[in-house]
Amino acid sequence: MAKTNAGRFFEDYAVGDVLTHAVPRTVSGGERALYHALYPARHALFSSDEFARSCGLPASPLDDLVTFHVVFGKTVPDVSLNAVANLGYAEGRWLHPVYPGDTLVSQSEVIGLKQNSNGKTGVVYVRTTGRNQHGTPVMDYCRWVMVRKKDPAAPAPDTVVPTLKPVLDPADLVIPEGLDFTGYDFAQAGEPHRWGDYEVGETIDHVDGVTVEEAEHMMATRLWQNTAKVHFDLTQRPEGRLIYGGHVISMARALSFNGLANAQMIVGLNAGAHANPCLAGDTIRAWSEVLDKAETAAPGVGAIRLRLVATKGGAPFDLRGEDGRYKPEVLLDLDYWALMPI
Amino acid sequence: MAKTNAGRFFEDYAVGDVLTHAVPRTVSGGERALYHALYPARHALFSSDEFARSCGLPASPLDDLVTFHVVFGKTVPDVSLNAVANLGYAEGRWLHPVYPGDTLVSQSEVIGLKQNSNGKTGVVYVRTTGRNQHGTPVMDYCRWVMVRKKDPAAPAPDTVVPTLKPVLDPADLVIPEGLDFTGYDFAQAGEPHRWGDYEVGETIDHVDGVTVEEAEHMMATRLWQNTAKVHFDLTQRPEGRLIYGGHVISMARALSFNGLANAQMIVGLNAGAHANPCLAGDTIRAWSEVLDKAETAAPGVGAIRLRLVATKGGAPFDLRGEDGRYKPEVLLDLDYWALMPI
Amino acid sequence: MAKTNAGRFFEDYAVGDVLTHAVPRTVSGGERALYHALYPARHALFSSDEFARSCGLPASPLDDLVTFHVVFGKTVPDVSLNAVANLGYAEGRWLHPVYPGDTLVSQSEVIGLKQNSNGKTGVVYVRTTGRNQHGTPVMDYCRWVMVRKKDPAAPAPDTVVPTLKPVLDPADLVIPEGLDFTGYDFAQAGEPHRWGDYEVGETIDHVDGVTVEEAEHMMATRLWQNTAKVHFDLTQRPEGRLIYGGHVISMARALSFNGLANAQMIVGLNAGAHANPCLAGDTIRAWSEVLDKAETAAPGVGAIRLRLVATKGGAPFDLRGEDGRYKPEVLLDLDYWALMPI
Repeated sequence: MAKTNAGRFFEDYAVGDVLTHAVPRTVSGGERALYHALYPARHALFSSDEFARSCGLPASPLDDLVTFHVVFGKTVPDVSLNAVANLGYAEGRWLHPVYPGDTLVSQSEVIGLKQNSNGKTGVVYVRTTGRNQHGTPVMDYCRWVMVRKKDPAAPAPDTVVPTLKPVLDPADLVIPEGLDFTGYDFAQAGEPHRWGDYEVGETIDHVDGVTVEEAEHMMATRLWQNTAKVHFDLTQRPEGRLIYGGHVISMARALSFNGLANAQMIVGLNAGAHANPCLAGDTIRAWSEVLDKAETAAPGVGAIRLRLVATKGGAPFDLRGEDGRYKPEVLLDLDYWALMPI
Repeated sequence: MAKTNAGRFFEDYAVGDVLTHAVPRTVSGGERALYHALYPARHALFSSDEFARSCGLPASPLDDLVTFHVVFGKTVPDVSLNAVANLGYAEGRWLHPVYPGDTLVSQSEVIGLKQNSNGKTGVVYVRTTGRNQHGTPVMDYCRWVMVRKKDPAAPAPDTVVPTLKPVLDPADLVIPEGLDFTGYDFAQAGEPHRWGDYEVGETIDHVDGVTVEEAEHMMATRLWQNTAKVHFDLTQRPEGRLIYGGHVISMARALSFNGLANAQMIVGLNAGAHANPCLAGDTIRAWSEVLDKAETAAPGVGAIRLRLVATKGGAPFDLRGEDGRYKPEVLLDLDYWALMPI
Repeated sequence: MAKTNAGRFFEDYAVGDVLTHAVPRTVSGGERALYHALYPARHALFSSDEFARSCGLPASPLDDLVTFHVVFGKTVPDVSLNAVANLGYAEGRWLHPVYPGDTLVSQSEVIGLKQNSNGKTGVVYVRTTGRNQHGTPVMDYCRWVMVRKKDPAAPAPDTVVPTLKPVLDPADLVIPEGLDFTGYDFAQAGEPHRWGDYEVGETIDHVDGVTVEEAEHMMATRLWQNTAKVHFDLTQRPEGRLIYGGHVISMARALSFNGLANAQMIVGLNAGAHANPCLAGDTIRAWSEVLDKAETAAPGVGAIRLRLVATKGGAPFDLRGEDGRYKPEVLLDLDYWALMPI
């Protein structure tokens, strides 16, 4: 009996399967410190217990993207070990903040399957839910990946393509209990711009850049217990280890502080594409576009829908070529909802 | 009076000397997070407070190898600053788990001395004990190193070579108080293979590889306050900084999750050889061989004796050449006892 | 309205301005662990809760330089984003230890302005104060930087050059409440040399060297939320990212353990010059000179004034050329007061 995990192949999935992902993880102030060391993260709510309390939370939570990375990392051995491509995200929602001392687990349900016409690969759709030690869901999201078949002769499953919302409705967003921005301290947060100061269609060049290093992205990716070989083993990819797409997301989000310091919490992930690979030595920059705005029921809290684009060169705001495809310098195109003081 | 520590030379040791190593160290969740960032560590008992409690422990301890590295690191200024080679380990036992908040100190007794026939070096044998803030021993182990003489004319000491067990007897192993694997959650741990599924003689290729970087091994080595120059100062070794042998141990052990996810706790170190030097850029892989199995008195807990081999290339299971010497690709040959659910 | 912070230019400052720096920061055991991973830090008071308690403190504080880096980092967006050069420090005092769980904020007052004769730049003098969550000052220091004018035609301000002490008087130093070295454990601290063993004029070569890596200095600099572009963006400095001067300070101070293990706490910063740039690949070494000694009112506690010099080559104790300028290998010349057991 082979003891190592070869991962699942396309024919190993069936719609309705529930995958319990392994290795629960307790997070602490250590994960927070590392997040600050790995990314230029400065959003005050995730930096200061005092600031978080002034916003109605019991303490400063872990960055919302730490929650995403930990929950996502657990799915890799069961979902994407034999993946050819990470195709998309939808309906991602942050449901409850994660605090030092919490323990996270992760579970996925297979919600769709579609074999490709080449017969060698297929698309697997999963809805993943992360929960804390009390069983409270902390986030859920849908993801679809292209997975290899082990046996090309294996029969194709019935095609099931789930209907996923292209954008979360503001009413779908879950505002953390107690969140209150009526006493928000803009000076401590770092910028004066409130929700009312942003207009739909407005674009922001976040100006700063970070040239990424091998040691950094590997430390980040391991921290989330993401074990995909391509990120670590140069003998598998002599052209350079592929940087985990989540590393680019966190870098771009941290860079977006400069212009979006008050977009404090991420509550919704509408869509995301890893447009081109990122390798060590690339200099990551970011720009944003305001896609929508909405009011919320929480005191002083507005929702803002943002496109966050990470690039490794080129000019800001230049997303697609004449052929409609992403420019080769574009690394990431992310569509998310954040919460901001009105 | 020179203020800096030149380290001890061979003639500075006498059998029976007790060396109190400096710099007590308090560990926290920060050390745990860094361990996860530096190594692809996924054993559930060291990742989750909840999982550890379900196994009868009060919380998730620091990885057993953190204990080893911290206790070992303190010995370097007194034992191996002038060492030519780290020759071996024996009779290593983990005696008590280490938790965040614990403070560790380290002490060694010189238990053997043997001058080499060249008159320029000699072998020093020490037994090192690490203790926590309550004075409770957390681990002990024997190590022998080849140390330079400062004055080749210094008289040779009487030769004392201690009798060390080639392998710890299962009865020598100390099972952490309260450890109970009867309710062990294999799904959360990541693999279904229990103690009964492993056979003596069985070999496991752990499949994954990690290409190591300078920044990573230096951060790891500093974290354990190990100050040996060869790991940090490129002007001392233009051919490349020598990677701390313990970094290879931790990397290989973490890689061995894939196939040995349920070999949760290390309780005995029978022997260990750093067969060849490891440098940044090397891709570390690992394989294991089941050497022995034993029952224990703890509920649901079996002991398994494993050979863990780390390589920087070559085929798995290829340990020695026709001359009986380690293949040049072999980095580490470690013999240890671990605890597993039966 | 531009949303990103372009930083202040020389003409944007007026004497008496109070700048409230953004992004409060809560520190934890995570920051301590990272400090130990990034620097070969071994001073026992900052390594062990038990040792700190034996010296009269409630627990082990964060390294004094962590306090400096966090307080300093917050000033960068408001003080030095458009700085051409960091010219000097004076009157730096550590006023209260910082413990895991504390939240730090930072504020600066403009205390001097002097336009340069070229009309393009000017010198800005600020006094910066860091405070914890109780409003207690944890440190203050003066710094002056050369800042670009945005509009060379902007009128020159009245010249105000503050009178700063070239050296803090021992009476100015604040000894942490409760500090008591009468029961100091020299064996655990790592060296036997007490305050009485050091003579004014004595020099110490700290012997060890560390070759620095890009990933390390960027992680360190981000950890303090210092956002100056030159440290991160290789496209801005193709000749190599400039390493944050504070990284060199921490590296040199940690290396000085070897010979100054008992210079436990830094309480005063008299002066500091970043003599030459440091780039990845440089090997940092350090030497010290005893500049002065003073008694204090605290039991068993003496003050020692030290010059700490970091180099990237050359011989120790070789500070300036015949022209009176720093040798090109000198990175740092720091003048500080530390506390030592008498």
